Amino acid sequence: MKFYQKWQGRNCSPERNAWFEATVPGNIQKDYAIANNFADWQYSDNHKQFIELEDDHWEYRTSLCYDKKDGERVFFVSEGINYKYDVLLNGDNIYSYEGMFRGFELDITDKLTGKDDMLTVHIYPHPKSTRGEAGTRDEANESCNPPVYYGWDWNPRLLISGMWDEAYIETRDETYIDKCEVLAELSDDMTEGFVSCVFQCALPCEIMLFDADGAEIYRGTDKSFRVKAPKLWWCNGQGEAYLYKWVIRNAKEERTGYIGFRRLRLLRNLEFEGPKVFPKGPYEAPITIELNGRRIFCKGSNWVNPELFWGDITAELYEKQILLAKNCNMNIFRMWGGAGAPKKSFYDICDREGMLVWQEFMLACNEYIGLEGYMKTLESEASAIIRKFRYHACLVFWCGGNELFNSWSGMDQQSHPLRLLDKLCYELDYKRPFLFTSPLIGMAHGGYTFYSDDQGGDVFQQFQSSNCTAYTEFGVPAIASMDTLKTIIPENEMFPPEPTPAWIAHHGFGAWGMERWLCKNVLDKYFDEPSSMREMVDRSNWLQCEGYRGAFEEIRRQWPRCSMGINWCYNEPWKTAAGNNLLAYPSTPRPSYYYVQKAMRPTLFSARVPKFDWKRGETFEAELWLLNDAPESVKGSVKVSAEIGGAHFDLGEWRTEVQGNTNGRGPTVRFVLPDIDGTDKLILKLDSEDGRESCYEYLYRPKKNIKKIRQLNV
Amino acid sequence: MKFYQKWQGRNCSPERNAWFEATVPGNIQKDYAIANNFADWQYSDNHKQFIELEDDHWEYRTSLCYDKKDGERVFFVSEGINYKYDVLLNGDNIYSYEGMFRGFELDITDKLTGKDDMLTVHIYPHPKSTRGEAGTRDEANESCNPPVYYGWDWNPRLLISGMWDEAYIETRDETYIDKCEVLAELSDDMTEGFVSCVFQCALPCEIMLFDADGAEIYRGTDKSFRVKAPKLWWCNGQGEAYLYKWVIRNAKEERTGYIGFRRLRLLRNLEFEGPKVFPKGPYEAPITIELNGRRIFCKGSNWVNPELFWGDITAELYEKQILLAKNCNMNIFRMWGGAGAPKKSFYDICDREGMLVWQEFMLACNEYIGLEGYMKTLESEASAIIRKFRYHACLVFWCGGNELFNSWSGMDQQSHPLRLLDKLCYELDYKRPFLFTSPLIGMAHGGYTFYSDDQGGDVFQQFQSSNCTAYTEFGVPAIASMDTLKTIIPENEMFPPEPTPAWIAHHGFGAWGMERWLCKNVLDKYFDEPSSMREMVDRSNWLQCEGYRGAFEEIRRQWPRCSMGINWCYNEPWKTAAGNNLLAYPSTPRPSYYYVQKAMRPTLFSARVPKFDWKRGETFEAELWLLNDAPESVKGSVKVSAEIGGAHFDLGEWRTEVQGNTNGRGPTVRFVLPDIDGTDKLILKLDSEDGRESCYEYLYRPKKNIKKIRQLNV
Repeated sequence: MKFYQKWQGRNCSPERNAWFEATVPGNIQKDYAIANNFADWQYSDNHKQFIELEDDHWEYRTSLCYDKKDGERVFFVSEGINYKYDVLLNGDNIYSYEGMFRGFELDITDKLTGKDDMLTVHIYPHPKSTRGEAGTRDEANESCNPPVYYGWDWNPRLLISGMWDEAYIETRDETYIDKCEVLAELSDDMTEGFVSCVFQCALPCEIMLFDADGAEIYRGTDKSFRVKAPKLWWCNGQGEAYLYKWVIRNAKEERTGYIGFRRLRLLRNLEFEGPKVFPKGPYEAPITIELNGRRIFCKGSNWVNPELFWGDITAELYEKQILLAKNCNMNIFRMWGGAGAPKKSFYDICDREGMLVWQEFMLACNEYIGLEGYMKTLESEASAIIRKFRYHACLVFWCGGNELFNSWSGMDQQSHPLRLLDKLCYELDYKRPFLFTSPLIGMAHGGYTFYSDDQGGDVFQQFQSSNCTAYTEFGVPAIASMDTLKTIIPENEMFPPEPTPAWIAHHGFGAWGMERWLCKNVLDKYFDEPSSMREMVDRSNWLQCEGYRGAFEEIRRQWPRCSMGINWCYNEPWKTAAGNNLLAYPSTPRPSYYYVQKAMRPTLFSARVPKFDWKRGETFEAELWLLNDAPESVKGSVKVSAEIGGAHFDLGEWRTEVQGNTNGRGPTVRFVLPDIDGTDKLILKLDSEDGRESCYEYLYRPKKNIKKIRQLNV
Repeated sequence: MKFYQKWQGRNCSPERNAWFEATVPGNIQKDYAIANNFADWQYSDNHKQFIELEDDHWEYRTSLCYDKKDGERVFFVSEGINYKYDVLLNGDNIYSYEGMFRGFELDITDKLTGKDDMLTVHIYPHPKSTRGEAGTRDEANESCNPPVYYGWDWNPRLLISGMWDEAYIETRDETYIDKCEVLAELSDDMTEGFVSCVFQCALPCEIMLFDADGAEIYRGTDKSFRVKAPKLWWCNGQGEAYLYKWVIRNAKEERTGYIGFRRLRLLRNLEFEGPKVFPKGPYEAPITIELNGRRIFCKGSNWVNPELFWGDITAELYEKQILLAKNCNMNIFRMWGGAGAPKKSFYDICDREGMLVWQEFMLACNEYIGLEGYMKTLESEASAIIRKFRYHACLVFWCGGNELFNSWSGMDQQSHPLRLLDKLCYELDYKRPFLFTSPLIGMAHGGYTFYSDDQGGDVFQQFQSSNCTAYTEFGVPAIASMDTLKTIIPENEMFPPEPTPAWIAHHGFGAWGMERWLCKNVLDKYFDEPSSMREMVDRSNWLQCEGYRGAFEEIRRQWPRCSMGINWCYNEPWKTAAGNNLLAYPSTPRPSYYYVQKAMRPTLFSARVPKFDWKRGETFEAELWLLNDAPESVKGSVKVSAEIGGAHFDLGEWRTEVQGNTNGRGPTVRFVLPDIDGTDKLILKLDSEDGRESCYEYLYRPKKNIKKIRQLNV
């Protein structure tokens, strides 16, 4: 039996130590803020209210009343507490730990008096490394906290702590089924499944396996058994995410869960020829996912924490955002290391919905070194994460963390924390690949803006001149909707936007260099001085919509040399004023979401247009492609035309057929742009009868609208 | 007490099973060949005599007579037997193992009768993988044999087996000191040494440490103790290879050995700026050795097995070749994975002589996959190798093997054998770096010939247009000396050389493509039709001498962007007809050895000349450098002149000063080449008064000697 307690919380500083009602799961800083009537922290720079609490200690308490029963044990169970804490019962320390991802099950039976037993969780301040700059993410480099807490260019600094995941009192007797894990394997030839169950129970238990129609596949007491010709689990777009349900039960207790059978390999990308001339270096890192014998193109997004207060994250929230991703034709999430690992329900939903998951450990953009205490915590936390998620069909590989081999981090394959993670994955999850970091050789991150002179021009030009094996971060920012801006930017700061406290707090200015993420410099390159905030918002969203579409379609065209397109980023933890995300907080698709959704359709006609802005007299060109990352071959035809200010231009027709998971490259159409006043849009239409049509809007400059192109540095 | 037995051997095939005298350490195929009067296997293609023995079983036997004494145990001890074997006593199997690098200590006391006890070692045929081409090195891809046995482009196929390392009977009583290992560590600030001793003995033992002058530093019974301000161990050229002697003893037994204190790190190379444009990949692999806080340039050679029959390898042979390397101004050996690991004495000598050692495991150029049996053997063998050598000061890092990330191997960081090796090194030798393979990103192997159109021209052009972090294999071949050729090539095959059995057997033709290693196509590019074998030999050695010098000096000029120059290869296991080695079998310096020795001097004036062959009318140029990889700063001046057929040309003078471990770049001198008959040599002299002079010989073509330059493909 589980008992969910009512908890109280307090700040331990003498001047703040009144008890208040605490929400579990939750974060104690939020409970405190509510109890102390903090102003809306989404608004302006109000989140700074939390800064002065950073170095405080906190406490939770709850009172237990339990009548002892023979043969029954009482446990205090938690899925994890953030970050460094002691558990006390009637004032006696019964457990101490550092790390938010490992849960515990404390047998407290013998310490209970039966009346008003006081269970306390005492939480220490977050560690702050002194190796680096105070007040920045550098402070995270000696802890296993998700470094995003310490501040990121889309997450305000907010050192949250507390009982962020499930916690309860549980009574157990000899019927209790403990340490239950069911693993599914598939034979190399994919004709036979192997199921192995691990659990502990004093009583005999019955094991059952059912297929998705509820038909019984197995019933017995063998902890290992075979499944002949199992139906395979596929990711979104490649087939059904077929799951089998298992049940382990005795007369009183029952455990259930789901497993999927699939064979997963990480292969070298095709169409890479390697260095041809001596002295010769090595091949690139393998980054093509082969699922059930089929090389697949991975398309998706970088997942970050969907709430500032992680305790607020629910299965419902996960489900909403995962379904939106599936609906956006995505098949993979990169669980970016800066935001650690999710709660358990995330993986259950991804298993069910066919979303592949690339899971990183909680290292990002820092140099983590092999300090003894850090290594001990990392080993404990990483082991807990591996054991928590390794049975999921959707989990494709582990990864040490984000951008650890880049100059700003300074780690490499010799770094002891990464060697430890590789070793733990090898020991605890032998068959699943482990990547040291992203990017690895051949892969790349960036760019993150629509345009930069230094970075090769606009996003079309950047990606069309790149030749990487996987683009696992790239982004185009847009300003938030007017509705959102009104709830975070005070009216008197709204227009024209300047680096004021509210805009800075919400990452409009100064997030990464002064111009990000509002990127007024980019808007100024393409457009006249704006007359309103709404006009800026619209223009900025136009760039994000076509920029994302242009990048995603180009990345898909590079298949199979390139095997992944994963943009930065999917969601956001609060209302940013501008950013690269596709979902606006809490879970609202931005306009760009729908453009990415189009670019991600399994099958579509796509135009490879070399740049975004065109002027009269130039020869516009578009190379035609039929993109197909579905397993079936497709036939189709497309009519190409352009429109400028109502004038229509027929550009030709193309009929083609391509195999499954294969793209077709067609002719290039061209026409010289006429001089037409009264519009700044060049519309390119690929008309098709079968849902594969595309319609692009490029910037057009008639004669009178040609302005000086300024040099931009990002 | 140790007792070295006389052994007999036999081939187990019924038609060949006469007993013969066996040498231990040795290889049983050689014993058999001697007993059966095999023709000289160095001559012509006589090594093929061994092919028909490949799949045979073999046996060793010896008879033991031992009077049991109270309190004494009898052990059969071996440092390793090659490759898969059983040990039997009086017909009873007492031990079975696969792998040549792990020794054993078998307590046979209770099985001894005291009279004519028969100890037998039964050896199975070498495994031959069927994943690949029969009769090639592919057959090594499922075993932990050094793959070179299966044939390489400088080692004939010869599947040797037997008791290749020490083996003896030992009696032990309660005074015996067992499992003795002494490890030295140095504090991060290098002011304090830590010594930890591991051993087992029933009696108390005294531990002593002496400095190199014999002064006692420690005496006591603590197994861990500190050494204040220890003298540091340095590699050749950077300081003294300072060793401390330890003694562990009781009344009857004594163990001794040497330790050195040094702090070693593997750092990213300097002067690398990383990708500048989005999308951005990661940094290169770190490959600069920092020894005791000082970044050093590593110069050396690839070590291969110095004998066909590894049992013949002695400490004296190691010492001779290691001293020659030291005398050649080298400071590092890469222990190339194809030839596995050496015997123990190799490391003792390298410790003493200050030769750094990069040790690879026995994987090379193949795709080793995670088969269960292979993984088990690899774990056992690799663990044994790590424990055997980890206490040595000279050992700089472990490496998974040779060219495993290149196209012809097809492994990558996900390969389970490499993940296992990384894990074992992490667990057993935490502080020492582990490289997955060579080359890694930024590093390179090749080229291996003096000239190739496809590969960017001659060796000068190839290296001057390269920009790698480390060149860890590169070579220039030459034909063997006439004296050597006469002992391996029958007179009627000698000249002109053709792809006859003897030339092919000795790698003159068909070793790697048809032209290697004799490279007649390269000689034809530069020279007229040869009139004798001796003329070919001389020309070929000229190319090797200047080619190696040109490559090594250019690689040194690229410091610190580049941190290593390690040529392919140092030695050879038998008399090759042509090859890239610096020592000819058995241990004779080739002419190129002396040119490499000059190029490796700690301090020298060097000329960066853009190519090897010049013709009249061209503007010859030489950029002047003062190379210094010694720790001290140097001053010097140089006079530059050229000579063509007795005509002398003064080209200028340069005076400079450079810091320790730093090169100085000077002016470029130029002159237009006159037309002078009667010579094909352009001599460039850098005269200096202090041993830093250099004198280069380039090819010169006066008007009448200009021939058509043919296109060459390698």
